[in-house]
Amino acid sequence: SNIVVDSPQALSKAVASAKPGDVIYLKDKEWINANIQLQGKGAAKAPIVIMPQTPGGVTFTGQSSIQIGGEYLVVKGFHFRNGYSPKRDVISFRINNDMLANNCRVSNIVIENYSQPERFKSDNWVTFYGKNNRVDHCTFVNKLNAGPLIVAELDDARSQENHHSIDSNYFKGRQRFGSNGGETIRIGNSRYSLTASRTNIVSNYFERCNGEVEVVSVKSGNNNVSFNTFYECEGGLVLRHGSENVVEGNFFIGNNKPFTGGVRVINPRQRVFNNVFYQLQGNNFRSALAVLNGVPNSLINRYYQVKDAIIENNTFINSGSILFGAGKDAERTLGPENVAFKNNLVLSQTNEVYTDANNDKGIVFTNNSLNDSFKGETPAGFKKVKINTISIKGYDLPYDAQFGANLKKLPLINKEATGAKWYKVVTNKSLRKPQSFIVKAAQSATIQGVVNNALAGDTIVLADEGYYKMVSGIIVSKPLIIMAAKNLKNRPVLVNASLKSLPAFITIQNGGDLTVKGLAFKGTYESFSAADAGIKSTEQPMNRPYLLTIDDCEFYDYNESTNSGFKASKSTLADSLVVINSIFHHMSGSGIDLSAEKDDKGIYNAEYTIIKNCTFTNLLGSAINIYRGGNDESTLGPFVTIDHCTFNEVENREQGTVIRLVGAQQATVTNSNFSNSGQGGRSILFQEYRWDNILVDYCNFY
Amino acid sequence: SNIVVDSPQALSKAVASAKPGDVIYLKDKEWINANIQLQGKGAAKAPIVIMPQTPGGVTFTGQSSIQIGGEYLVVKGFHFRNGYSPKRDVISFRINNDMLANNCRVSNIVIENYSQPERFKSDNWVTFYGKNNRVDHCTFVNKLNAGPLIVAELDDARSQENHHSIDSNYFKGRQRFGSNGGETIRIGNSRYSLTASRTNIVSNYFERCNGEVEVVSVKSGNNNVSFNTFYECEGGLVLRHGSENVVEGNFFIGNNKPFTGGVRVINPRQRVFNNVFYQLQGNNFRSALAVLNGVPNSLINRYYQVKDAIIENNTFINSGSILFGAGKDAERTLGPENVAFKNNLVLSQTNEVYTDANNDKGIVFTNNSLNDSFKGETPAGFKKVKINTISIKGYDLPYDAQFGANLKKLPLINKEATGAKWYKVVTNKSLRKPQSFIVKAAQSATIQGVVNNALAGDTIVLADEGYYKMVSGIIVSKPLIIMAAKNLKNRPVLVNASLKSLPAFITIQNGGDLTVKGLAFKGTYESFSAADAGIKSTEQPMNRPYLLTIDDCEFYDYNESTNSGFKASKSTLADSLVVINSIFHHMSGSGIDLSAEKDDKGIYNAEYTIIKNCTFTNLLGSAINIYRGGNDESTLGPFVTIDHCTFNEVENREQGTVIRLVGAQQATVTNSNFSNSGQGGRSILFQEYRWDNILVDYCNFY
Ligand SMILES: [Ca+2]
Ligand SMILES: [Ca+2]
Repeated sequence: SNIVVDSPQALSKAVASAKPGDVIYLKDKEWINANIQLQGKGAAKAPIVIMPQTPGGVTFTGQSSIQIGGEYLVVKGFHFRNGYSPKRDVISFRINNDMLANNCRVSNIVIENYSQPERFKSDNWVTFYGKNNRVDHCTFVNKLNAGPLIVAELDDARSQENHHSIDSNYFKGRQRFGSNGGETIRIGNSRYSLTASRTNIVSNYFERCNGEVEVVSVKSGNNNVSFNTFYECEGGLVLRHGSENVVEGNFFIGNNKPFTGGVRVINPRQRVFNNVFYQLQGNNFRSALAVLNGVPNSLINRYYQVKDAIIENNTFINSGSILFGAGKDAERTLGPENVAFKNNLVLSQTNEVYTDANNDKGIVFTNNSLNDSFKGETPAGFKKVKINTISIKGYDLPYDAQFGANLKKLPLINKEATGAKWYKVVTNKSLRKPQSFIVKAAQSATIQGVVNNALAGDTIVLADEGYYKMVSGIIVSKPLIIMAAKNLKNRPVLVNASLKSLPAFITIQNGGDLTVKGLAFKGTYESFSAADAGIKSTEQPMNRPYLLTIDDCEFYDYNESTNSGFKASKSTLADSLVVINSIFHHMSGSGIDLSAEKDDKGIYNAEYTIIKNCTFTNLLGSAINIYRGGNDESTLGPFVTIDHCTFNEVENREQGTVIRLVGAQQATVTNSNFSNSGQGGRSILFQEYRWDNILVDYCNFY
Repeated sequence: SNIVVDSPQALSKAVASAKPGDVIYLKDKEWINANIQLQGKGAAKAPIVIMPQTPGGVTFTGQSSIQIGGEYLVVKGFHFRNGYSPKRDVISFRINNDMLANNCRVSNIVIENYSQPERFKSDNWVTFYGKNNRVDHCTFVNKLNAGPLIVAELDDARSQENHHSIDSNYFKGRQRFGSNGGETIRIGNSRYSLTASRTNIVSNYFERCNGEVEVVSVKSGNNNVSFNTFYECEGGLVLRHGSENVVEGNFFIGNNKPFTGGVRVINPRQRVFNNVFYQLQGNNFRSALAVLNGVPNSLINRYYQVKDAIIENNTFINSGSILFGAGKDAERTLGPENVAFKNNLVLSQTNEVYTDANNDKGIVFTNNSLNDSFKGETPAGFKKVKINTISIKGYDLPYDAQFGANLKKLPLINKEATGAKWYKVVTNKSLRKPQSFIVKAAQSATIQGVVNNALAGDTIVLADEGYYKMVSGIIVSKPLIIMAAKNLKNRPVLVNASLKSLPAFITIQNGGDLTVKGLAFKGTYESFSAADAGIKSTEQPMNRPYLLTIDDCEFYDYNESTNSGFKASKSTLADSLVVINSIFHHMSGSGIDLSAEKDDKGIYNAEYTIIKNCTFTNLLGSAINIYRGGNDESTLGPFVTIDHCTFNEVENREQGTVIRLVGAQQATVTNSNFSNSGQGGRSILFQEYRWDNILVDYCNFY
């Protein structure tokens, strides 16, 4: 029978009493805060189907979720948006530990704008338990917060050897997360990685999934990852734990974008064949192919040795790196052993085909081919061949019947066949052109109101020189410019004229971007309470990276060691922080503080930090403090550029540091002067790994 | 008129309508959660008096507080205990910023067991505002949480030049706080330190006030600190900011206890005379006398140069250190200038009289005397004299009419005249002798119940080998012993047999001390959820340092990088952590983790850490991780002793550290073996200051 239900309770009841073959329609409407438990029993040929009256006609908003238990249920056509799950998952293949789902299917679902507001509150959009479950033809848009988008858990025998299928889905973007936990798919985990999962990840389209180094993280055995497209992803498919996995027929498209990656191989008996690696520019762990070194007596969550791997009939097209022995260091000392690299086709425009960090014959090269235009020395196990090209959906790919991937038979791109058919992207149109709003010093109390009424892209102009007497901080939660009127002789000066200390004159909240120009931020004023920072990012939940530009500003008269000119809060990430033409002086704290992530988990406060033409003088603390602690290898940042800066009488205390760049993976400090600074400690402190990219040049130290 | 009131409302009303000379009695009883505002106007010769029917007859408990506003109010005879203030202060000399107190007096009050439960939640027991206020004859018992016990604030002219008096009080202990913020009295702050306070701190008795390096922190000008007794205090009287202060006639009694301090001089025009320094064993900032170096262009909260000081007629008796140029380093480069050190009497049993780190004639020594038994070279400005001894209240003190303090006229000890007269200490008697309770493995679920019923000092005995299947962690909030039965062949093994992860098998809460002996703590078991630590300190509020002894225990099978054998939580302080005869193995995290204080404010997780006869093998993280970051100079710890330990296959990752002792001020690592450990980084990491006390000896590194 077919019925229409109108509430979660009615739905649960209907499913519980449904018979195989029944279809239960949810009334087309917005279902707010709907937490749905579907427990029922269909049959293999006659599942119970749960769907909206029309595909996409039901939107789940607010704090909604679906839990599925039982057998042969098909859940399809729903739209999650504008909210986040109140539970550990948006869709879970279990109701509780006693009620798992088996033989169930989630199809044609869209999940977008459904991330936890706090970026480090971890959840998953889909979690597999049980066996023989399937997620297909779903569209998943840019998960912002921590936690893999899809997880398969293998906690006990009921969920192992599971034969799940994740197929034909469209993973529509995942922005850089700036930490481990930005995976798109994880199968298993280290604790249960010695068991077989037998999950199939097939025919999916991964588009710019840039969350972290692992787009797909395989942490179990006997999985099959095949015929997927990885389009401009800053990461790759990683066989992190578990053995006997198959990686077949995938198409990795880099288009020469930086950091784009391929396949990373760890553990015994992995097979990688018939894949195409196209213009991938990642290196190290993001190499087109990275075969890792292992750790002696490895704990289960570390690195088992690569053994008895077969890597054959792959095509590598003008990619930045094929790396054997990746990660080799004082700990990862065990080179790969008995790895067959054969029948592959490599096109290289450089003088190198591959790098082997060990060169101990652990890799056996047989019958591989190279483009005949290759300019370097042909390594053993390779020969040059003349390459023909065939065109596949707009890509000119090299083809040879004997070497490389069997292009003519591979379904290399299937984007049109992925994702939810009914889904169309709705774009917001801006309501009007950006405007400017002028605020005089006498109107200081009105600034927040003006900010609240402004639209994204608008400008607030402070029209007067002299003091803007603030009694509360300005909260910015949309893209705005706050600047001095042009032609002023002196900067407008923000001061705290209240008896309550201000956390900052300006606080950036979730959704906010900010450019400040031509303003002064004075920390103490008369007998009023102090401001603790000039500008800071919020301590409220935040999941969107923000942009902040500080131009031609002045920060001074901060009396406490915890004060800063700019201070990033924990669990906030600047996409970029640009500070130019500004001066920081007479501060007992630090100038620019990006050190709030103290947990040594590889997390940091800004992806790109650019500081140019700035002066720091008479600071008790560090001028610039950037911290990323721990051993994590998931991320690319922080990227730090410091250029044409002056440091005078900055942080002369014992063990003090003028510029602290702990864990910066990419950093340059150039054209800068240090005078009477860092006398008790150091001018610049790095704590870098051997693969970090550090440059200090053209600086003077007096 | 005299009336008796029964409620805060009635009291407020009575005071508001009282006339000069009125006495308002509070009914003798326990006043719970009483937040009292006293606003009234008495007269100089006829104050309004607020008091209990009998002295001490009113106890304020729970979240009580008193705020005083107006003129000529006398508040006396009350007892605060068994609670804490819901406000910033227990007693405040203002109601709000518009209603300060002037010419008011708080007398014969007792405050005990009235600390915030969370040790870093800062408050004050008494805060002065306004002018001409007095706190006298009060008894203050061991404030546990952050914040000076008494503060005088000088925010604006209404509270400057204040002529307050803090006199005849008994400061009955303040335990080591392990951080800045453990002062007993602070007068002013750096921001307003260039103004005159004119506060008198006279005739008080400070007994073992060990909170931090500053017992009394003067941060303003023109104060008078006289005729006080400092009895075995691990800190001193510090002229931290402000000038023209007078330190006269105080008696500093060290009794050769370690770390006992005297007077520290900073800033211009200070006067220190007629004081007696008796067997003080502190050094550096805790020297009997420390005259500091200043910082060029100092910010107001840093170190101004000492200039034009007069230090005369003091008596130094067999103390550890008289130090000129204390704190000299790359930053504090300005030696004292024009300091007159004259007519002092120094008794020294060593070869040294004083140390001058600068030797630039900034100190002018004139007409000082030394004991004629002095064995070293007599410095310029000193001569040996024969010393007579007089006895004052049990102390045999050297006396010379021409040199040193004028003992015959000084009121050197006034303990009997301090504190609240009516107060008597009540001691708890224990109800019975300690008992043992036996728990079999099959009774694992009952352990918490047994713990709850046990009394302080009792023992819980685990009687069986094999698994104790826990489904929740054990919470310990009193002193207990948990141990294996004697004569077992194998250790009882605690495992998590639930589907919820355990933060730890045992968690120490406020008030808890623990000895564990002969137990094993296994992090993962079957398919159940993991335990994150063997033992940890609570994440709940805690203000009492705890004692933990781990003897003959085993910690193993912890799979996550965040796991630890023992883990200290933020805002908890172990008085001592003793780990002996134990083994830590197969852990992806760290063995012993005392690194939760990451804010770089000089805070740390354990005062004394002693690790002996322990083995750490196959650990991915650090074996021992102790962290104290930042430049703070208030505390003595952490003290770390590592002896006869073995480290095998521990933390070989890039930049990894086997034993991390960042900021340990006193550390020894001896008789230990390191094999195949720290290969990617280091075996031991210090980040020490030049005055730290570090020893590594008799160790083997393979
Ligand atoms: Ca990852
Ligand atoms: Ca202090």
